Amino acid sequence: MVKARKFVYHSPFDGLPKETDLKLVEEELPPLRDGEFLTKAVFLSVDPYMRSRAPGVDLGATYIGSQVAKVIESKNPEHPVGEHLVGRFGWRTHTICDSNSDFWLVPDLEGLPLSYSLGVLGMPGNTAYFGFLEICQPKPGQTVVVTGAGGAVGSIVGQIARIKGCTVIAIAGSEEKGKWLIGDLKFDHFLNYKDVDFETKLEGVTPNGVDCYFDNVGGEIASIVLTRMNEFGRISVCGAVSGYNNDFSIKASPIQYLMIRKQLKMEGFNVYRWQERWFEGISQNMKWIQEGKLQYRETLTEGFHNMVKAFIAMLEGRNVGKAVVKA
Amino acid sequence: MVKARKFVYHSPFDGLPKETDLKLVEEELPPLRDGEFLTKAVFLSVDPYMRSRAPGVDLGATYIGSQVAKVIESKNPEHPVGEHLVGRFGWRTHTICDSNSDFWLVPDLEGLPLSYSLGVLGMPGNTAYFGFLEICQPKPGQTVVVTGAGGAVGSIVGQIARIKGCTVIAIAGSEEKGKWLIGDLKFDHFLNYKDVDFETKLEGVTPNGVDCYFDNVGGEIASIVLTRMNEFGRISVCGAVSGYNNDFSIKASPIQYLMIRKQLKMEGFNVYRWQERWFEGISQNMKWIQEGKLQYRETLTEGFHNMVKAFIAMLEGRNVGKAVVKA
Repeated sequence: MVKARKFVYHSPFDGLPKETDLKLVEEELPPLRDGEFLTKAVFLSVDPYMRSRAPGVDLGATYIGSQVAKVIESKNPEHPVGEHLVGRFGWRTHTICDSNSDFWLVPDLEGLPLSYSLGVLGMPGNTAYFGFLEICQPKPGQTVVVTGAGGAVGSIVGQIARIKGCTVIAIAGSEEKGKWLIGDLKFDHFLNYKDVDFETKLEGVTPNGVDCYFDNVGGEIASIVLTRMNEFGRISVCGAVSGYNNDFSIKASPIQYLMIRKQLKMEGFNVYRWQERWFEGISQNMKWIQEGKLQYRETLTEGFHNMVKAFIAMLEGRNVGKAVVKA
Repeated sequence: MVKARKFVYHSPFDGLPKETDLKLVEEELPPLRDGEFLTKAVFLSVDPYMRSRAPGVDLGATYIGSQVAKVIESKNPEHPVGEHLVGRFGWRTHTICDSNSDFWLVPDLEGLPLSYSLGVLGMPGNTAYFGFLEICQPKPGQTVVVTGAGGAVGSIVGQIARIKGCTVIAIAGSEEKGKWLIGDLKFDHFLNYKDVDFETKLEGVTPNGVDCYFDNVGGEIASIVLTRMNEFGRISVCGAVSGYNNDFSIKASPIQYLMIRKQLKMEGFNVYRWQERWFEGISQNMKWIQEGKLQYRETLTEGFHNMVKAFIAMLEGRNVGKAVVKA
């Protein structure tokens, strides 16, 4: 008899989630049937989208999320014990799967850490790779602004922009992130959006305007960045974290006139539209890591029972790089 | 000696323009030199963009705008007396031009009124034709929302959408416009955005969601329309009239999360990007008029001296169809 531990959605989030909003419970799993296999979580992800999708999660249901898991028992010859996969199984330690479950197999990481499958070599890395390159279409010499630049996706977007020969303006909300972005990742400029002079400073570091904006935050910061866009600028809308804890109730300066005057193109996306090219993104990001062109950083929390703490810290912006929990 | 009358920008607009903000003055024109020709305004246009571009107009300068003009004197054999053209000459009765002036020649209108060159067979018609078809990419059976539907551009967009087999939800601000849109133009639904139940009614008439949104207003109405968009919906941003009289100071619900969840694409445009296809748009709209598929309506004001009155009335939404002044 295997007992899974899992977090269920207990009280609807109101603003920043509280520890008591998710409840740790146990679930007894039945014996495997033919074709099934049992996985055990190794690393679990906490990502901003988990907050934004809360209204779609039923109370009492296992909370949504991805994990790197290892097959620990199998009645499916295609998925032998020891295999690693990334599954969208939710916040749970053990999961019974079959071939139709929602997962993809971790490819050979050539020595890189397994947890990277939840970050640079997984969904966030592909979000950066496809969402930036396909929608922003950056050209060498152009200026790229990225918000949420200290996070899992933003830090990769900025580095890909550098690889493509762009000037990178990184925007984030803590000086600690800024130090990493300038000191290690060598972005051209860092701006703290909490700075009272943010708008003036943005103007100062964008003398040639902005060609591409990779938006992780939305809201007023996005409206301000749009005032700096050049004609035919491209905006990739990946996240809107400024609204996640307030249900988008804070209004912002309207952007339509800026869209018109500069003939801007803005597109929102879900990374799974590029599902068929999934391993192209992973293998390119892996190559850039191996060539020393792409750095990656994680904020690791130990212990499945600390999932909620890690989630809240990430939503408060206290992580640098990708937030991951080791089960 | 020819005396031109012209309106100069006298006091910066503050909110809705006042009659005294523009000043009627006279200008003595010099004799024509070789290569020059003299035009006289026949019809002048008043359009929403004239309000929005005010911050770019110098005080004392002739106010911006287009006119249908007739050549009344010529020292340029390429432009004989009697020729009609549409020139971006500003609000003035007489203009000395040469071959490099900013104008295009009115094509054979096959009996249609000359004033149409400022509307359905000119810039607004092309704005509708290219801005809707190129950016929204409508498909038969899809649902199209158009705001400013009672205006020069919006009324054409809605009719092109009908021609393309779409369901049309027309949004405007007066019941008089609504009667025309439903009674004559046969749009599927009319909604008055001033209605307190606007949001609920919009939901009611879009049971299958919205695939294309042609936006003439921006602001909160645009934010509300975006909540109804279907996945991969397209938004063509043509105007932002809700902000023109308040300098975009009224904040609106942020739209980024809607862009992400439905993977929307939004693009702002200036019709002159299709300048090389200018007469394609005009000739297609003319053909639709001749086939009885496209109706057109003007609100005509008599007298050059009434330009400002006509402009203010248009900004207040008191026109139905295209607002034009007969000089």
